[in-house]
Amino acid sequence: MRTVQWNDQTNQLEMIDQRILPGAFEIISYSDYHVLAQAIKDMVVRGAPAIGAAAGFGLALASLQSSARDVNALRADLTVASEVLHAARPTAVNLAWALKRVMSVAATTSGGAEDVRAAVLTEAQRIADEDVEINQRMARHGAELIHDGDTVIHHCNTGALATVDWGTALGVIRMAHVQGKRVHVLVDETRPRLQGARLTAWELEQYGIPYEIISDNAAGYFLQTGQAQKCFVGSDRTAANGDVANKIGTYMLALAAHDNGVPFYPVVPTSTIDLSLANGDLIPIEERNPDEVLDLQKAGIFTAPAGARENGWARNPAFDVTPARLVTGIVTENGVAYPPLEKNLRRVVG
Amino acid sequence: MRTVQWNDQTNQLEMIDQRILPGAFEIISYSDYHVLAQAIKDMVVRGAPAIGAAAGFGLALASLQSSARDVNALRADLTVASEVLHAARPTAVNLAWALKRVMSVAATTSGGAEDVRAAVLTEAQRIADEDVEINQRMARHGAELIHDGDTVIHHCNTGALATVDWGTALGVIRMAHVQGKRVHVLVDETRPRLQGARLTAWELEQYGIPYEIISDNAAGYFLQTGQAQKCFVGSDRTAANGDVANKIGTYMLALAAHDNGVPFYPVVPTSTIDLSLANGDLIPIEERNPDEVLDLQKAGIFTAPAGARENGWARNPAFDVTPARLVTGIVTENGVAYPPLEKNLRRVVG
Repeated sequence: MRTVQWNDQTNQLEMIDQRILPGAFEIISYSDYHVLAQAIKDMVVRGAPAIGAAAGFGLALASLQSSARDVNALRADLTVASEVLHAARPTAVNLAWALKRVMSVAATTSGGAEDVRAAVLTEAQRIADEDVEINQRMARHGAELIHDGDTVIHHCNTGALATVDWGTALGVIRMAHVQGKRVHVLVDETRPRLQGARLTAWELEQYGIPYEIISDNAAGYFLQTGQAQKCFVGSDRTAANGDVANKIGTYMLALAAHDNGVPFYPVVPTSTIDLSLANGDLIPIEERNPDEVLDLQKAGIFTAPAGARENGWARNPAFDVTPARLVTGIVTENGVAYPPLEKNLRRVVG
Repeated sequence: MRTVQWNDQTNQLEMIDQRILPGAFEIISYSDYHVLAQAIKDMVVRGAPAIGAAAGFGLALASLQSSARDVNALRADLTVASEVLHAARPTAVNLAWALKRVMSVAATTSGGAEDVRAAVLTEAQRIADEDVEINQRMARHGAELIHDGDTVIHHCNTGALATVDWGTALGVIRMAHVQGKRVHVLVDETRPRLQGARLTAWELEQYGIPYEIISDNAAGYFLQTGQAQKCFVGSDRTAANGDVANKIGTYMLALAAHDNGVPFYPVVPTSTIDLSLANGDLIPIEERNPDEVLDLQKAGIFTAPAGARENGWARNPAFDVTPARLVTGIVTENGVAYPPLEKNLRRVVG
């Protein structure tokens, strides 16, 4: 089962519900792109590459939902759908990238509406298939950086669940394990949504890779005391100068790695590198609902006093920007880009 | 009601149960120092100054529990009690400091066993009373550093609940508020025990000071984007060179403050400054039960997969050491020590 998967029998998009893992494993099927856009917003699916693939399939759903019989009416419906899907999450660039790719196919396919519908689905499927292949190429490049016996710190979830399959930063760790290297993972729990404790730990358990969960606060201690040899993270958008937007807390982890001379590697498919942005200051940072901070797992376990709960006295930026100066190298499917990143990122993007 | 308070009617020590705030407010009474030592271990009471005061009263309980009729037998019982209380938490130096102070009084008081019992209780009470007075002096020194309109980031809980009353770092913020300065607090939730979200937010609400809770991961973002002007934290033990041991995550916060030129101030009574330690590498760091990371609030809300829960695959260091080079100044009851801290800390300790 892929994290994001098209069902040819039902013409529905099927996704693993990542909000309820590891307590429960459920697949949700989507036939309406509006519902899918809300699911992306609610983080049924998360992780930049997985969001991109889901959005591509969202246009396939939209093309099937559209009653348009002529090509121009269908394209108009797809344009509306593309805007709805685009608005779901602002920070990840893959979302926009995948939509643009599918919309471009829709715009250039000749023939009738049915030809466009078929081409849209084919392109969405191609994005999904390519994601798996790209992740495995990245993983092979990245695994060369891991030595037998390394302990690595990993932030958020960047595994099969964050992608169509295999993963980015976690895919690198998985590849090193498959290659027979002993690797131990210190898993940042990754507040507020706990993607590390819930999803990364769950994946590592499936793969048989030893791990320990730590509070995000503890990463500095393990780096300071020489108990971790490398850090691997993903990225939702990387600017042309190598500034990396990723899950909130990545910047503080990078600072601690840098302060202790521990290599810090973002693992990013080139589809998440946005050469149109000179630096990370230009990356929009999504601020999410304060309830994610105040109400752990929406389980009614309130950890904050009444004033905070009743008035939403919390702030919840979902991402931060790690400056390029803290980055040791950026792992892509075309190899590892080392500083000067301004020059070498452009080269790996090609 | 003080956080740690002796009841003269019952000869019991009363403490606010900090594990269940803000959901419930309860007072627990102690008449057995063994039970009190376990309560310190379990964090019914926490915060270096509060632990110190509780330990002092623990010796008062031990002296009442002892059936010794002669002074030497009583002193022997107190020595055993002192060792039991000392073992409860290894990192905070106040615990050892308060025990040493009371034991010294027990050793030098002339007269019979009853005289020693009375002197022990008087000294424990004196430690508690002094704590409040020292905190208010610290608060006045620290409040001068806060400007009208400042937003400050605060880690863990250092308020009335962490002390006998008033607080250290939070006491500084409270004093600025009392002086009429507008101050807004970004409250680090402080995983794994959530002392920020649970206790600091609750205290700020009592004082009418506006606040917002953030995940610890988000502090870097607010510092990066110029949304915070100062950081205030406590300390469980400060070494002679100015290295500061404090709640896990303090080091990463200090790195982020330093990286953005935002002043970072530990607020520490001189009783927590351990001039016998040359630097922070020598401070023992307590590693607590992994369940604190795996089982949020012990409420049966498991956020980690089965393997982690069943095998305790988590690590839980409770403190880290912030190197002196990241410290802007150390606020004490005798004034603010600025770099070179090696020299100026010794001066404020006197």
